[in-house]
Amino acid sequence: MALTPYQQLEQEFRRLHALQGAASLLHWDAAVMMPKGSAEVRGEQLAALETECHALLITPKVSRLLERAQANAQGLEPWQLANLKEMRRAQDHALATPQSLVSRLARATARAEARWAEARQQSNFNAFAPHLEEVVALTRDKANLLGQALGLAPYDALIDEFSPGLTCAEIDQIFTALGRRLPGLIQKAIAAQSATPTLPIAGRYTAAKQRQLALEVMKALGFPFDRGRLDESEHPFTGGVPGDIRVTTRFDVNDPFPGLMGVLHETGHAMYDFGLPEAWRGQPVGRDRGMAMQESQSLLLEMVIGRSRPFMRYLKPVMERIFGVSGPEWEADNLYRHLNRVQRGFIRIDADELTYPLHIMLRFELEKAILADELKVQDVPAAWNAGMERRLGLTPTSDAEGCLQDVHWAVGSFGYFPSYALGAVMAGQLHESLRNDRPHLDDELAQGQFEGLFGWLRENVHGLAASVGTPELVKNATGKPLSAASWLRYVETKYLD
Amino acid sequence: MALTPYQQLEQEFRRLHALQGAASLLHWDAAVMMPKGSAEVRGEQLAALETECHALLITPKVSRLLERAQANAQGLEPWQLANLKEMRRAQDHALATPQSLVSRLARATARAEARWAEARQQSNFNAFAPHLEEVVALTRDKANLLGQALGLAPYDALIDEFSPGLTCAEIDQIFTALGRRLPGLIQKAIAAQSATPTLPIAGRYTAAKQRQLALEVMKALGFPFDRGRLDESEHPFTGGVPGDIRVTTRFDVNDPFPGLMGVLHETGHAMYDFGLPEAWRGQPVGRDRGMAMQESQSLLLEMVIGRSRPFMRYLKPVMERIFGVSGPEWEADNLYRHLNRVQRGFIRIDADELTYPLHIMLRFELEKAILADELKVQDVPAAWNAGMERRLGLTPTSDAEGCLQDVHWAVGSFGYFPSYALGAVMAGQLHESLRNDRPHLDDELAQGQFEGLFGWLRENVHGLAASVGTPELVKNATGKPLSAASWLRYVETKYLD
Repeated sequence: MALTPYQQLEQEFRRLHALQGAASLLHWDAAVMMPKGSAEVRGEQLAALETECHALLITPKVSRLLERAQANAQGLEPWQLANLKEMRRAQDHALATPQSLVSRLARATARAEARWAEARQQSNFNAFAPHLEEVVALTRDKANLLGQALGLAPYDALIDEFSPGLTCAEIDQIFTALGRRLPGLIQKAIAAQSATPTLPIAGRYTAAKQRQLALEVMKALGFPFDRGRLDESEHPFTGGVPGDIRVTTRFDVNDPFPGLMGVLHETGHAMYDFGLPEAWRGQPVGRDRGMAMQESQSLLLEMVIGRSRPFMRYLKPVMERIFGVSGPEWEADNLYRHLNRVQRGFIRIDADELTYPLHIMLRFELEKAILADELKVQDVPAAWNAGMERRLGLTPTSDAEGCLQDVHWAVGSFGYFPSYALGAVMAGQLHESLRNDRPHLDDELAQGQFEGLFGWLRENVHGLAASVGTPELVKNATGKPLSAASWLRYVETKYLD
Repeated sequence: MALTPYQQLEQEFRRLHALQGAASLLHWDAAVMMPKGSAEVRGEQLAALETECHALLITPKVSRLLERAQANAQGLEPWQLANLKEMRRAQDHALATPQSLVSRLARATARAEARWAEARQQSNFNAFAPHLEEVVALTRDKANLLGQALGLAPYDALIDEFSPGLTCAEIDQIFTALGRRLPGLIQKAIAAQSATPTLPIAGRYTAAKQRQLALEVMKALGFPFDRGRLDESEHPFTGGVPGDIRVTTRFDVNDPFPGLMGVLHETGHAMYDFGLPEAWRGQPVGRDRGMAMQESQSLLLEMVIGRSRPFMRYLKPVMERIFGVSGPEWEADNLYRHLNRVQRGFIRIDADELTYPLHIMLRFELEKAILADELKVQDVPAAWNAGMERRLGLTPTSDAEGCLQDVHWAVGSFGYFPSYALGAVMAGQLHESLRNDRPHLDDELAQGQFEGLFGWLRENVHGLAASVGTPELVKNATGKPLSAASWLRYVETKYLD
């Protein structure tokens, strides 16, 4: 029997998924295994794969099949309809950015990234500025083309890549709510914490022991090691594909917590990927719902669960056993205080849960202005420092700890930053509903039982994959539209009670 | 300026090379890193890449470009002409085997390989026979199609994949020469060795120490670790691509030699790949000259150099230092005897240098007969056992140590076996010329200096890549046509003097 246009599309996208999976594995290998001198060879392999993937999406054959499938859409099931929508979305994104622009952006961002690394080391923004200008100009072109194709404002079109279904206006509203409350909250939290000092945790913790701890915690969380691995890389990340997930972290022998928290963060991503419906694997609708939703899963596990009091009760004996340590500094209460210290600082990736959104809001405000040409690239350092002063009361003493600290703009990832803070907000909202549905969650966590937690997430988030947009997914899971209210209630309770 | 047809072909084949390199890395990962449960996902990725590569080769665009480049060939340099020839050869191979046959073979060999593994474990040839029959039938179709396209006899067409430029008749001639001399030689060697007993080498050698030894030896050989790695896998192999070579071995804690000899063998392959001309990387003419030539490089390093007396003098103090051992059993002479013991046995991969070709000649004779339908699959065990008795004076007590020991036929690799013995013969011939050109080679080897060895190989073998056929390459390097004479001289001197 001949395949329907829709079925033929499923074949094409399964092939696309396989090629993208191959690329993902090559990226993982480049970060974890590859010899340093092989970067050029790998670059050619990845470029060839990207070209294939882009070409596959924009073939006249796929366009024709999409039209014919749309014309016969009345016979499709809801998930098939959602799949068709995601297929079209993928093609829209690919068609809107012509190969020539993609190539120019690839070259410009490769140059800019290299110059950014040097400029950051020397804290020399001027050396980086012309390269950033080039990336900004090309990104603006991309945003305009993408916006026209998707019927969205240019910046919204960029956001659509990372937080599908969310707009700049909605993000503005959420960030405004955070901006109103956070400064006061931070002040009070710091004051409250200074009244209860934390015992310092010193010592040396070998990478082997930390790895043993990480593996034990991941096993308890339910990470399936027959379909995934844990390795080390300079920056922790989650790569691979559902069915072969590669988690990485980085161990600091002088501090066992960054490595473990990195593992929790990445395991949050991984469990999302593992929880995606197997029946839809390889199809666009079977993927995760973008970066913001991904970040909600990693932050829920790292920040909300992984730094909670009950989790500390689970963790304490495990750490004592594996590291052979004991004493008052290893008590659950002290671990809790140690991992939830609030402190204003310059660096986003070192920021605590409470000050973190302010770092994001600064970047959001600046990248909007840069794309709208209201802020010139040359004026970014001044605007950055003024924003830091206004939001956190700190002025960076160098651009290295200021506007040169992140790689995102150098590689053209405008519209990405908001997803970090949106992820935190979503985590807060999901967590509130999860707690309502599972009143004994704390007891489960303290006993190292995580089936209830992940069962709820699979049912309400993971299992829905990309069948609905980001806002609908949050509303379905929590019964409420996405807002900052739940997260603000969560941090108020956590830091002020 | 518009690109010429030839230049456009170079672009297409560069892309092909990149995609094949991606596939090679995925294969390496599957053997070394991948979690067991991810095989299915990986299978889809590799199938998608294979489909892309096959499709790329047979596009009308490439056919048109090949015709136009051929029509304008008078403007091309010799290496460009050779490249064009290799491009056409790659396309001939791809066009001759239609996608439907490729898919049927892929499915049949996947099934047959799984059944072979079970059948071998249970030593039950009958359970495997129907699957082997299916593979044989499809391989016969492939050989006929390929033979018609290449203007070769069917079995010659299969050989062309592994030993380009060599024919069954030439191989027959070489194997006849070996068959005439080897039985007598083996008998004499065994008698001579029984007169000088070898001191046994016992003890435990941790994988970490063996790895340290392997890395030190590889470094001395000149393996560039900024563009390659050493890892462990169930079966040693060399993967990756020139510029990112992945060598694997397997360590046995009760015996430090199999791991090290595996490392030497694979490093021989790796040094060949590293020695290919960088200017032609990514082009068909820039590749190695097939499996037989590859095997000449691995066997030269493992068997001829790596088990020589001067190499033992280099190795002795390194092993004593790393393993913290000493005593008469670690003297160079004893190591030499230990690593060159001749013994008739059932298993090809355990065979010594002298009996090994007999194992290959048996398989060569049988696979010719199977493909020509002169030997029925059901009669393979009896023919195998009779052949073993005739050649080695041994009758296998089970098919597991008889005709079920190798995976090659199950996966459709007919025409592959001869390349192992041809590699040994070529190694002998290259070695003779190398010695004539470098009279102080033994002193260099004993001192751990390998630049002279690899300099000669780069100049005479590696650097020529696939610019000429296998026989021409041997003739160019040694001044003589390929024959068994040099290798026979080498083993006679080694085992009888």
